[in-house]
Amino acid sequence: MASVRDIGVSAGFNLLSAFVFLLAFALLRIQPFNDRVYFPKWYLRGLRSSPLHTGAFVSKFVNLDFKSYLNFLNWMPDAIKMPESELIEHAGLDSVVYLRIYLIGLKIFVPVAVLSMVVLFPVNYTNDTLVLSKAVFSGIDKLSVSNIPLKSPRFWAHILVQYAVTFWSCYVLFKEYARVTAMRLQFMASERRRPDQFTVLARNIPPDADESISELVEHFFLVNHPDHYLTHQVVHNANKLSDLVEEKKKKQNSLVYYELKFSRNQNQRPTTKTGFLGLCGQRVDAIEYYTAEIERLNKEIAEERERAEHDPKSIMPAAFVSFKTRWGAAVCAQTHQTRNPTIWLTDWAPEPRDVYWPNLAIPYVHLSVRRLMMSVAFFFLTFFFMVPIAIVQSLASIEGIQKYAPFLNFIVENPFIKAFLSGFLPGLVLKLFLIFLPAILMMMSKFEGYEALSILERRSASRYYMFNFVNVFLVSVVAGSAMTQLDTFLKSPPNKIFEIIGIAIPLKATFFITYVMIDGWAGVAGEILRLKPLIIYHLKNWFMVKTEKDREEAMDAGSIGFNTGEPQIQLYILLAFVYAVVTPIILPFILVFFGFSYLVYRHQIINVYNQEYESAAAFWPAVHGRIVTAMVFSQLLLMGLMSTKEAASSTPFLIILPIITIWFHKFCKGRFEPAFKTYPLQEAMMKDTLERARDPNFNLKGYLQSAYIHPVFKDDDEDDNDVQNKLEMETELVPTRRQSRRNTPVPSKMSYASSPSPSSKHMDL
Amino acid sequence: MASVRDIGVSAGFNLLSAFVFLLAFALLRIQPFNDRVYFPKWYLRGLRSSPLHTGAFVSKFVNLDFKSYLNFLNWMPDAIKMPESELIEHAGLDSVVYLRIYLIGLKIFVPVAVLSMVVLFPVNYTNDTLVLSKAVFSGIDKLSVSNIPLKSPRFWAHILVQYAVTFWSCYVLFKEYARVTAMRLQFMASERRRPDQFTVLARNIPPDADESISELVEHFFLVNHPDHYLTHQVVHNANKLSDLVEEKKKKQNSLVYYELKFSRNQNQRPTTKTGFLGLCGQRVDAIEYYTAEIERLNKEIAEERERAEHDPKSIMPAAFVSFKTRWGAAVCAQTHQTRNPTIWLTDWAPEPRDVYWPNLAIPYVHLSVRRLMMSVAFFFLTFFFMVPIAIVQSLASIEGIQKYAPFLNFIVENPFIKAFLSGFLPGLVLKLFLIFLPAILMMMSKFEGYEALSILERRSASRYYMFNFVNVFLVSVVAGSAMTQLDTFLKSPPNKIFEIIGIAIPLKATFFITYVMIDGWAGVAGEILRLKPLIIYHLKNWFMVKTEKDREEAMDAGSIGFNTGEPQIQLYILLAFVYAVVTPIILPFILVFFGFSYLVYRHQIINVYNQEYESAAAFWPAVHGRIVTAMVFSQLLLMGLMSTKEAASSTPFLIILPIITIWFHKFCKGRFEPAFKTYPLQEAMMKDTLERARDPNFNLKGYLQSAYIHPVFKDDDEDDNDVQNKLEMETELVPTRRQSRRNTPVPSKMSYASSPSPSSKHMDL
Repeated sequence: MASVRDIGVSAGFNLLSAFVFLLAFALLRIQPFNDRVYFPKWYLRGLRSSPLHTGAFVSKFVNLDFKSYLNFLNWMPDAIKMPESELIEHAGLDSVVYLRIYLIGLKIFVPVAVLSMVVLFPVNYTNDTLVLSKAVFSGIDKLSVSNIPLKSPRFWAHILVQYAVTFWSCYVLFKEYARVTAMRLQFMASERRRPDQFTVLARNIPPDADESISELVEHFFLVNHPDHYLTHQVVHNANKLSDLVEEKKKKQNSLVYYELKFSRNQNQRPTTKTGFLGLCGQRVDAIEYYTAEIERLNKEIAEERERAEHDPKSIMPAAFVSFKTRWGAAVCAQTHQTRNPTIWLTDWAPEPRDVYWPNLAIPYVHLSVRRLMMSVAFFFLTFFFMVPIAIVQSLASIEGIQKYAPFLNFIVENPFIKAFLSGFLPGLVLKLFLIFLPAILMMMSKFEGYEALSILERRSASRYYMFNFVNVFLVSVVAGSAMTQLDTFLKSPPNKIFEIIGIAIPLKATFFITYVMIDGWAGVAGEILRLKPLIIYHLKNWFMVKTEKDREEAMDAGSIGFNTGEPQIQLYILLAFVYAVVTPIILPFILVFFGFSYLVYRHQIINVYNQEYESAAAFWPAVHGRIVTAMVFSQLLLMGLMSTKEAASSTPFLIILPIITIWFHKFCKGRFEPAFKTYPLQEAMMKDTLERARDPNFNLKGYLQSAYIHPVFKDDDEDDNDVQNKLEMETELVPTRRQSRRNTPVPSKMSYASSPSPSSKHMDL
Repeated sequence: MASVRDIGVSAGFNLLSAFVFLLAFALLRIQPFNDRVYFPKWYLRGLRSSPLHTGAFVSKFVNLDFKSYLNFLNWMPDAIKMPESELIEHAGLDSVVYLRIYLIGLKIFVPVAVLSMVVLFPVNYTNDTLVLSKAVFSGIDKLSVSNIPLKSPRFWAHILVQYAVTFWSCYVLFKEYARVTAMRLQFMASERRRPDQFTVLARNIPPDADESISELVEHFFLVNHPDHYLTHQVVHNANKLSDLVEEKKKKQNSLVYYELKFSRNQNQRPTTKTGFLGLCGQRVDAIEYYTAEIERLNKEIAEERERAEHDPKSIMPAAFVSFKTRWGAAVCAQTHQTRNPTIWLTDWAPEPRDVYWPNLAIPYVHLSVRRLMMSVAFFFLTFFFMVPIAIVQSLASIEGIQKYAPFLNFIVENPFIKAFLSGFLPGLVLKLFLIFLPAILMMMSKFEGYEALSILERRSASRYYMFNFVNVFLVSVVAGSAMTQLDTFLKSPPNKIFEIIGIAIPLKATFFITYVMIDGWAGVAGEILRLKPLIIYHLKNWFMVKTEKDREEAMDAGSIGFNTGEPQIQLYILLAFVYAVVTPIILPFILVFFGFSYLVYRHQIINVYNQEYESAAAFWPAVHGRIVTAMVFSQLLLMGLMSTKEAASSTPFLIILPIITIWFHKFCKGRFEPAFKTYPLQEAMMKDTLERARDPNFNLKGYLQSAYIHPVFKDDDEDDNDVQNKLEMETELVPTRRQSRRNTPVPSKMSYASSPSPSSKHMDL
């Protein structure tokens, strides 16, 4: 049991380390040579250009404006300043609503923390149970429910607080759901014309002996949606083509690099080896080799493109069908087309950027089997993941190495290496697994056959949450591996399960406080430092960047990472709910996490992340659902805890809470969820009418004709103007006040006042 | 433990009683004065007229054609003969698909019974476990799994059979679901024009200060479905009006009766009393009194009708909206209309006959609260229904009567009455509750606010099944009330629960065999005898029938009663699944039930029942779901049983089965269920096109204008031609070959050859 002082020391230490991170961040970010690491969003939006082109040589790399070192924390107010509406324009609705998850944590738990501490601290503290029991305890335990004697009437205070927590949370959740729904509809209504507003993805088109897929689609929709059908695009299987294009791109870069090298040193023609990574194989003249390779690839690409575009076999039984009006598309997306509901499946097309192309051709039965397989796999992954890891750990142990790789004996016998290996290897293996876990979960989601990146991320998030719930929360609370838990829970009666966890909960409060500080505080501080992208960028910049375009690509803006970030928040929300009544002292620590994360992520969203897609907050129902699940779980735990405290008469009062909460969830689902699944006809009709009045001669067919073409068909010959095009398109799509900035050296009054504008820097010198 | 001989005796006895029922039925049904009890369907379809009008006096009441007594069992082949397609025309798809539930029982369990008996009887019988254990056992137990020693490898036979049962059942269920889906779509496609094909029920229309509901509806749909909207009918709150009309009808009947009486006996003007049932109050001249009363009611009805039709307050926020095409209606029914998904809810309108009018005005939040309340109420009803019954029983006991109603002492002290009361009263109270249970469940469903009778019945059926599952199945298997069960199960670990039930299962086989014979065999035989409608019809005929119209109304055709019948079949299916591997000897008894019921219900559907509505087999997904649930439950029970038999290595093999079964259910749900919820656009478009070609000038608006008018507005002045109208309409809707029969005395070759056609009877004489 950690004492209050231990916790204080630990908190101080963690605060210090977070402070060090922040300081490092503040120093690193104002160095021009890090500019592309800490402000990639602005580069991608075309509102900032590389500082390496202009000015004195030193100031290209190091910030010499010492004044800017003084106010190194002013990124914080800047992160807050940008108003929400502008942030939606700048980074999209997904990012803004993602931030609201942190806000909802604050909204729920600030009042809860105040209430719990004011009411429950005196109630808990003024007992002698722990003192009398002569058990080892800490000051924190004196503030928790553990300090209340059995059958005490004081438990009513906890029950009342739990009621207050439940009603307040439901109120906040309801308000928030309403707000997010309104924001989503508002966003969709105010958006400019987008191809996905008119387009439906038809999957599982049945094969027809007499007609090609394209003819079939056209006839089907001309017959069944005669007044609305406009055009369609079939989906080509271009996976091989994209591989080839990818290969050509790399070789082209190498060619440019060697040509550059040759132009600097005309004496020696550069050579390379043909084998793996240029390290082995025959030595050949590099420029000649790459020119020939590109020649070959060009030919292959042309053939493959011909095949992919025209071979009927490479056309998948799926198509993007576009309609004349949003109304027509909304109707088609929400209705069933044929008797057999597993063919001609129509659903909203994802945004073009959001489409996950390889999954578009999977037939219905496969989907169903794949999902079953993945459910079983996930079950085993969650409960038995320790088994393979234990095996690997035993292999990777000293004895394992001695046994299976005796040739390494001479290394292992070194006592220092031995100590290092035995102390470090098992942990490393586990850590490696945990690092790869999100990727594994993402692969599982991909295998299940979802057709959009946003859905894949949502699906992975839900699984990651479940994994965390079992392997972080449950395993920490009730000691023992997930496998042991499963065994225990299968063999315990349902009410016992909650008792087992309920009893353990107060004892683990100090552990979770430490966990919040290490995983939460330090993790967020690490997030803002972007150590990994920073190192990778500079490594790439030094070793691999051969051309200016490479530098463009070395810049890794990243994205929010919904599939890992959201489950983490949810874990903290779960902790907060579970401990709100039991050991409220944990709440301030979690609140600091929420507040700090909100700041950091808002900053990152403004300056760093570049979302790959826009799903208009389609993830909110899942977020809401998980928060409600956490609430219900905490209510059941409290019931379990109370019954072990022999406050048995409390059960009838506590059983009402989960019933109300589940009902509340159902109500919200009915009230709000349709707005996230369907597009109301009224909205569609309004936008259609408005647009017809505004822009009666718009050539919609031309606009939609090539919206959903596999990126590889677009990419090929436009490599060079590609990025520029993309930026222009985007700037056109999301016009902001920032646009004028490229020409004005003085920073505008908001939000990036402290971001050291490289051009203004050079003016100073 | 009942021995094989006991079972044999019991079976013989029950067979005999069923035979007696059948004999009684055979004799009663050919008596002309029972004609309206046993052939009401033909009367209602207008294909049979009362035998009382023509022929000799005696033969009006008693069948004098002795030949017809000889082949008294030939209703059975007749019940089979009518082909399914004709039966659909005759009685509707609901009835035909309902029969398929019995068929599915036969299809699944005939092969299962053969396999189980062939494989498992020898495996079970050739052991000495029971003999060695020296326990009391019967021959039946020797054939059951109880006779196998612990840890025996013979259990593999049971596991293999369970696999076979699972795969075979899934195969049959899949085929059947596909067949029923095809039948439903076929039925809807071949149907003639029906108002509900064009109509959508819009509920929760938001109030508007400036417009009436009717204007609002018109504007909303003109804006949002401009090309498809045709017309609409608002819903009036006419509950009071229908009460008044009902009252007037009764008084009119009395008037006719007294006028008839007076015309026979001109000397004495009939008198009546004004009080309750004419038994108390002031004595007045009957004809004058009723004339005045009708006068008064006429005035009140006119006023109320005026109010209901024109007072804006009596217009409910719901409307039936009709579209120009089925396509338009299908689109509107399947899409969301506005941002707020709880207003302007649109869904398919039920058939006009199927509408449950009083529920149309309940707002969304109320629905949600009402459903929560009913869930809680149903939970208590299921687990705690014994509490109020025990209280009533204690009140209704001898001591209770002596204490609370001492004035009845003189009766109670009679020793015969005392014995009767103490032996009979508690059972009577329970029986009364069970008789009223379906009505209670139906009231609960109505309170929940579903808008169609078919939905109410489905909902009640599902609850009745759950009630039976807990209070018949579980309570019989594990002795003790439902309340005790709940307590046990809450306090046992999940795997223990299935062990507890699993162990008890083989012991209760003889009980359930008896149950099947008494509740099943005798129950079905009772069903065909129609004792209750028979008695009530004759009572009404003798005492209350004042006019010919009254006789028409005294004839109670009834309907299948999905809400009670289906849960009963499901209980037997559950028993069959549970015992298929454990004690297969029970299967033949259940098969007899299925076969016999199929015959009886087919006969009743042809000759008796008159369905109130047609839902086109909308109940199938629920039926399928419950069968799958029973399968999964039986698999879990077998796992529990095996683990108590210490055949622990079987668990991994058995756990696969529920996973596969649940996956199968999900697959079927995705594959077939949409056909029961939505109307595919392709189908709608095909029918629309066909109809446009066939009947281009049809006045659809005129046709739909008054389709959805509250029955009370239709009824009023058309009382007399009402029944005739209805019959004509129905005959027009479902034309069959029977139509010619009214004029042909010779029975046509099929299906009712044995039904003693009264007219042909008279020809014989």
